[in-house]
Amino acid sequence: MIGRPLAAIVSAGSTRFGRLKGIYARELFAEALCEALEHCPELDPRKDIQAVFVGQMAGEAYEHQGHWGPVVADWAGLIPKAAIRMENACASSSAALRCAIFAVKSGLIDVALVGGVEKMTHRTTEEVQEFLGLASDHPFEQFNGLTFPGLYALMATAHMNRYGTTEEQLAMVSVKNHKHGALNPKAHFQKEITLEEALSSRVIAWPLKLYDCCPISDGAACLIVTRPEIAKKYTDTPVYIIGTGQASSEIGLYERETYTSITASKVAARQAYKMAGVEPKDLDIVEVHDCFTIAEIIAYEDLGLCEPGEGGRLIEEGRTTKDGDIPVNVSGGLKAKGHPVGATGASQAYEMFLQLRGEAGKRQVPDVEIGLTHNVGGSGATSIIHIYRV
Amino acid sequence: MIGRPLAAIVSAGSTRFGRLKGIYARELFAEALCEALEHCPELDPRKDIQAVFVGQMAGEAYEHQGHWGPVVADWAGLIPKAAIRMENACASSSAALRCAIFAVKSGLIDVALVGGVEKMTHRTTEEVQEFLGLASDHPFEQFNGLTFPGLYALMATAHMNRYGTTEEQLAMVSVKNHKHGALNPKAHFQKEITLEEALSSRVIAWPLKLYDCCPISDGAACLIVTRPEIAKKYTDTPVYIIGTGQASSEIGLYERETYTSITASKVAARQAYKMAGVEPKDLDIVEVHDCFTIAEIIAYEDLGLCEPGEGGRLIEEGRTTKDGDIPVNVSGGLKAKGHPVGATGASQAYEMFLQLRGEAGKRQVPDVEIGLTHNVGGSGATSIIHIYRV
Repeated sequence: MIGRPLAAIVSAGSTRFGRLKGIYARELFAEALCEALEHCPELDPRKDIQAVFVGQMAGEAYEHQGHWGPVVADWAGLIPKAAIRMENACASSSAALRCAIFAVKSGLIDVALVGGVEKMTHRTTEEVQEFLGLASDHPFEQFNGLTFPGLYALMATAHMNRYGTTEEQLAMVSVKNHKHGALNPKAHFQKEITLEEALSSRVIAWPLKLYDCCPISDGAACLIVTRPEIAKKYTDTPVYIIGTGQASSEIGLYERETYTSITASKVAARQAYKMAGVEPKDLDIVEVHDCFTIAEIIAYEDLGLCEPGEGGRLIEEGRTTKDGDIPVNVSGGLKAKGHPVGATGASQAYEMFLQLRGEAGKRQVPDVEIGLTHNVGGSGATSIIHIYRV
Repeated sequence: MIGRPLAAIVSAGSTRFGRLKGIYARELFAEALCEALEHCPELDPRKDIQAVFVGQMAGEAYEHQGHWGPVVADWAGLIPKAAIRMENACASSSAALRCAIFAVKSGLIDVALVGGVEKMTHRTTEEVQEFLGLASDHPFEQFNGLTFPGLYALMATAHMNRYGTTEEQLAMVSVKNHKHGALNPKAHFQKEITLEEALSSRVIAWPLKLYDCCPISDGAACLIVTRPEIAKKYTDTPVYIIGTGQASSEIGLYERETYTSITASKVAARQAYKMAGVEPKDLDIVEVHDCFTIAEIIAYEDLGLCEPGEGGRLIEEGRTTKDGDIPVNVSGGLKAKGHPVGATGASQAYEMFLQLRGEAGKRQVPDVEIGLTHNVGGSGATSIIHIYRV
């Protein structure tokens, strides 16, 4: 039986993702909020919003700025509202969403603004690699020169070795997500690529090539989250959250039992499915954390969309394309939509909000009723999963 | 009428605060947890704890490490439990406590580990000033060379100008808190100082002298927080949280209407008092955020312990000493106990836990039933207040 709503999303907004010049992160956040407010005239932000939960990974490094709660509340015109910043690496704004669910479910908060933002492209690629590395273990990973492409390359080679996953299958994830991104006017990359282009792009950390890696992007996304009981005050068509799951894996890849699966994702998925009263076969649409193509294939398996080791076949058979039986990353995913890290979780929920309301334009998947988002921090030390329904 | 419990603290732990060499922040956190677990044998951490909420301000800068949720969960032996890191500058672990209250009040989490940690002393004073500056506004404050002593000096001179507050009154806060700290075996400074010593210490940012400023410290503190209904499973004497308030001020001091009060503290206090059903006169013990002596005087006023402008007189009359009618910072406060920034909020709650259970040793205030903690982030862009009762 499908679970009762924990919370409702009554509006949402997002900036375009990409290389957005001459703008501070706080301004990006305010721009995303403007869209959410425009689409929800019933909401009086200064009166109704009681708390802000914002995900932000590393503004300290990118803009020499911390204390993001009041920074974004200030630029959003929401002083003196309470504002908390969550940092769970690339899953920061899913952590913010989860805390907002706790807040509205507790009855202490009626309406919360949830969002995420990251401004990255004004820094060099080397700097960004270093800043992203903050999400991995310092003493044993960063310090020895392991970067995120390197960490995910270790997972990819382990998966290839154990299950026979191929470079072609990895590249197919990229081709699919670029195809989807071409339909998303807010995606960083809105152009299709061929399998040949993906396979012949330069090697970053074998077997991962340039097209196996998500880009460095700027962007922000936000959600207006309310208690389910009052959602209809703000919209006739809220999207309900019916499941939330979160778990942790060891911070260092070297500490883990396996490289071919992310334990945190399996545990978080189990929690979310149970709470929502749904099974993988009930999902109509899924957004997963494809920071690298191998991450999407592992996600298929960890979420139970297929058996362990079958992820390569799932992409090869085309089942996860927009027209397949279980569309994954119709937004373009991190690969083509972009990955401003703090914004990604909120952006995945934004996609659910559009798709479940039938407002996703050219990329709309028909008749979607139940969706899932899967947002990973670092190499999987954090995994946060939410399940949505109309 | 006194409000119903929102959550219960059933155990707590803290490291000593001070210059703790040759140890990582994650190890400090685990040490604080060990004390909490030793004092709560009824709790099976791997079975009972469902979520970790950790406050950490700037580990990215101090240890080149982010993603603190799973980092501390890993070192605490709590993988695969969900773990979220909150960053609200010096109020980070009060933000963590507030989210844990939401979580247990929501019914989705029964038992949460809440804590905070910061490891600072291995860096130079200049580096620490820069890292603390992350909590102030970058474009208009940090960038122009304003540091936290400078920001609070502006507040102090405004208060002196408007209300006639004196350098002697500021110094009295320091003398009082050092006197209290001498009774706290975990305090960074456990020695009394004289008014003469405080007044003749070197000027940091006039009128603030060395003894008007809290030290740079290492430390961690944690709390085991449960739903009130199940607290007695773990202890016969839980401490209940009956009020939580949070608000924001503009991130930049330059944007604010006044320098002599922190609006966020006044708004947060109003929320917390209302929720708890108590008034300032009902408080038996208070811990306030005395990062600088002027901050304690402003806190007296913002919390309603006295009228605006009367804070100087309150300290001068000795009413906030351990034996006064409203004891403030009996732990030694940030000034003498120390201020490992991410740990401070949890440490204030730890003090409430001890005092309200009558376990505070030499510094025990007799017959305390209702207490309040006041934790500020930055120059007051965040203020978080909790009210406790036995």
